[in-house]
Amino acid sequence: MNIGILGLGTVGGGVVNVLNNNKSEIFARTGEQINITHGAVKSISEPRICEDGNINITEDAFSVANNPDVDVVLELIGGTTIAKDLVITAINNNKHVITANKALIATHGNELLTLAKQKNVHLLFEAAVAGGIPILKSLEQGLSANKIELVAGIINGTGNFILTEMRDKGRDFTDVLKEAQALGYAEADPTFDVEGIDAAHKLAILASIAYGCELQMDKVSTEGISDISGEDVSFATELNYSIKHLGIAKKVNGELQMRVHPTLIPKTQLLANVDGVMNAVLVKGNAVGPTLYYGAGAGAEATASAVIADLVDIIKGTVSHDVFGWKQLIEIPSCNPGNVESVFYLRLLAADKPGVLADITAILAKHNISVESVIQKQIDQQNNAHIAIITNSVKTADLQAATTEIQTHEFIQDTIKIIHVENLD
Amino acid sequence: MNIGILGLGTVGGGVVNVLNNNKSEIFARTGEQINITHGAVKSISEPRICEDGNINITEDAFSVANNPDVDVVLELIGGTTIAKDLVITAINNNKHVITANKALIATHGNELLTLAKQKNVHLLFEAAVAGGIPILKSLEQGLSANKIELVAGIINGTGNFILTEMRDKGRDFTDVLKEAQALGYAEADPTFDVEGIDAAHKLAILASIAYGCELQMDKVSTEGISDISGEDVSFATELNYSIKHLGIAKKVNGELQMRVHPTLIPKTQLLANVDGVMNAVLVKGNAVGPTLYYGAGAGAEATASAVIADLVDIIKGTVSHDVFGWKQLIEIPSCNPGNVESVFYLRLLAADKPGVLADITAILAKHNISVESVIQKQIDQQNNAHIAIITNSVKTADLQAATTEIQTHEFIQDTIKIIHVENLD
Repeated sequence: MNIGILGLGTVGGGVVNVLNNNKSEIFARTGEQINITHGAVKSISEPRICEDGNINITEDAFSVANNPDVDVVLELIGGTTIAKDLVITAINNNKHVITANKALIATHGNELLTLAKQKNVHLLFEAAVAGGIPILKSLEQGLSANKIELVAGIINGTGNFILTEMRDKGRDFTDVLKEAQALGYAEADPTFDVEGIDAAHKLAILASIAYGCELQMDKVSTEGISDISGEDVSFATELNYSIKHLGIAKKVNGELQMRVHPTLIPKTQLLANVDGVMNAVLVKGNAVGPTLYYGAGAGAEATASAVIADLVDIIKGTVSHDVFGWKQLIEIPSCNPGNVESVFYLRLLAADKPGVLADITAILAKHNISVESVIQKQIDQQNNAHIAIITNSVKTADLQAATTEIQTHEFIQDTIKIIHVENLD
Repeated sequence: MNIGILGLGTVGGGVVNVLNNNKSEIFARTGEQINITHGAVKSISEPRICEDGNINITEDAFSVANNPDVDVVLELIGGTTIAKDLVITAINNNKHVITANKALIATHGNELLTLAKQKNVHLLFEAAVAGGIPILKSLEQGLSANKIELVAGIINGTGNFILTEMRDKGRDFTDVLKEAQALGYAEADPTFDVEGIDAAHKLAILASIAYGCELQMDKVSTEGISDISGEDVSFATELNYSIKHLGIAKKVNGELQMRVHPTLIPKTQLLANVDGVMNAVLVKGNAVGPTLYYGAGAGAEATASAVIADLVDIIKGTVSHDVFGWKQLIEIPSCNPGNVESVFYLRLLAADKPGVLADITAILAKHNISVESVIQKQIDQQNNAHIAIITNSVKTADLQAATTEIQTHEFIQDTIKIIHVENLD
């Protein structure tokens, strides 16, 4: 079997290195020597992190995708333009394709997977979600007996690193983001990571595999972590929660919820203890109960681990041609975000006048929202009270109506902060 | 495909119930209606936890294993006598076999898997290790690109429940064991669980899959938790560790270590936060880094989830005929237990005389053992000092020689307690 690799950067170089380092184990598992025979790079003259002496290298990626000697193409370029054309070309040439490209799968996966099925080739993408964690295989195979009740994951390492530093060291968002950029965890433009777009790509993929429906990237509601303040983090800690940036997929009353947002989760949950750049996905099945999968969500060799696992599956024939592991996809309407029921955390800055808290809770009560717990911190120099409230489980639309009303009151000194709370049990 | 089920107790009944409850999901995933057509029970007249109206039920299990209409046999009886004969009979009749029987696989798996390979049928046992957690599939498929560096698991829920209660509520072993028995977590004879035999079965299986060698159940060194005292638990807490009953498989210098023993692990490790009856397995691969798999290790429906996942794999053809996922097993010599290098926790009860601690550390130093930390608790009514010591990483044989020498000293008032410490990083 001849392998063509498109891209020999971090991930591509990692794949070549892992194949070299673990040659004997992989041979013992597959009975085959896996050789990368063809490779495409942007610039042949640039230095690489891997040895490439045995690879036929070109700057024309299409020549690899069109090469009749190549059986499997690894698309490790990224992006949704050239990468898409290359994947289509390879599939049309009856080649299996393995990719780590979440944006490509999340936004064009329906089209690409349909084409792959028509051509009777595999299009695999374990590495696209949560790096080295075999979460897609676990959903498709290990949990195949279950109705999935919940998928909730820390699926962006950059965001988790930032939130962990904010919590453990009392640092603020901007400060940690700068460090994350210096460490290479975050891009120069960090929008994809901190505004939840990267997590939304991964969540859309997880949801389709968990519930057996087409990808609906446009239905993921997405909220970033750039508005999380040090005060939110310390209120959360005081209330026995940890703030994590979660991707949540849930089927409630036949409707699919897909949402990426900062979330207060109880400190006692295993997910709350997943720190730094690590990823983890909690999956609840109606038979198996809660399960969790933890590991590195990025990095050259961790991502390579997932790419090669897909390759081994193809070589050994241990993967089906079904889309997302389902013989037949079903249509699931998506849930109107206003109808999502959730517990909420509210943070308010209010003038310290008698009856303020009573007024706030009265407005909440008018909207059928009750207060589960409340912390009021000492008055600051501007004579304002800092208040945190945890509500009962309410419809998002009701919560929004109530906070809109509270916001208009003269005693409110700043925009009310609203964050989801999930107890995950 | 006709399925024959041997045993309709907790696990067998759970399998039937999950197949019924999740009929539409499983059909959507496989494209087939899965029907349990034949069943064998000890006594037809006994009540069952599942509906069995469509199952042809007999008290003669061999008639199912011999029935030419049956394609797959689910062995859910347990034990290593009749169960073994039934599995051999079914395989000899060219039927696939799925079992949840860890004792059977750990002690007779080499013979049974060889036979299955000869007959070109599958013998699958995901449910035998860590219940519903898809840990065997993850090792075989998801991590197939890796050299495995460490497997460390909480793989006995009963033991973990007991240790969690001891730590969180300050209760003693015997007291919690009685509750575990009353709750149905522990058997009337708890030896298999609390002395680590059950965990040893599971560890032997994990090690073979991780390292690609034959099962060597007789090479697992096994130590139970019945000697763990409340004082050990509170010393551990004070030293920032949690005591967990771990199964550890590790290849060091070409030798395989397989050991089940109580272990102090840092509180900050995710494994330290796996509490109650839950199971979790930490797997370190040289490419992927640390990964962890968490879920219910027992229970009717969680175990059924794994049994049915194997069945779905057979129906979809997404499983290889390789033994443990390896084309060719290798021989790995087992490590002499005395050569295992480990950090150790020592607890000593010593007469409170001047120079006692100096004498102890001098003997340790003579054996090239240094002290990383030490706690000496206030003197008790018998005028004895309670001392806990954490050593550096040393050869087990050296540690034993040192403690044997210390033990003979007149100031030592009780048997020295020795527990492994693993930092897992």
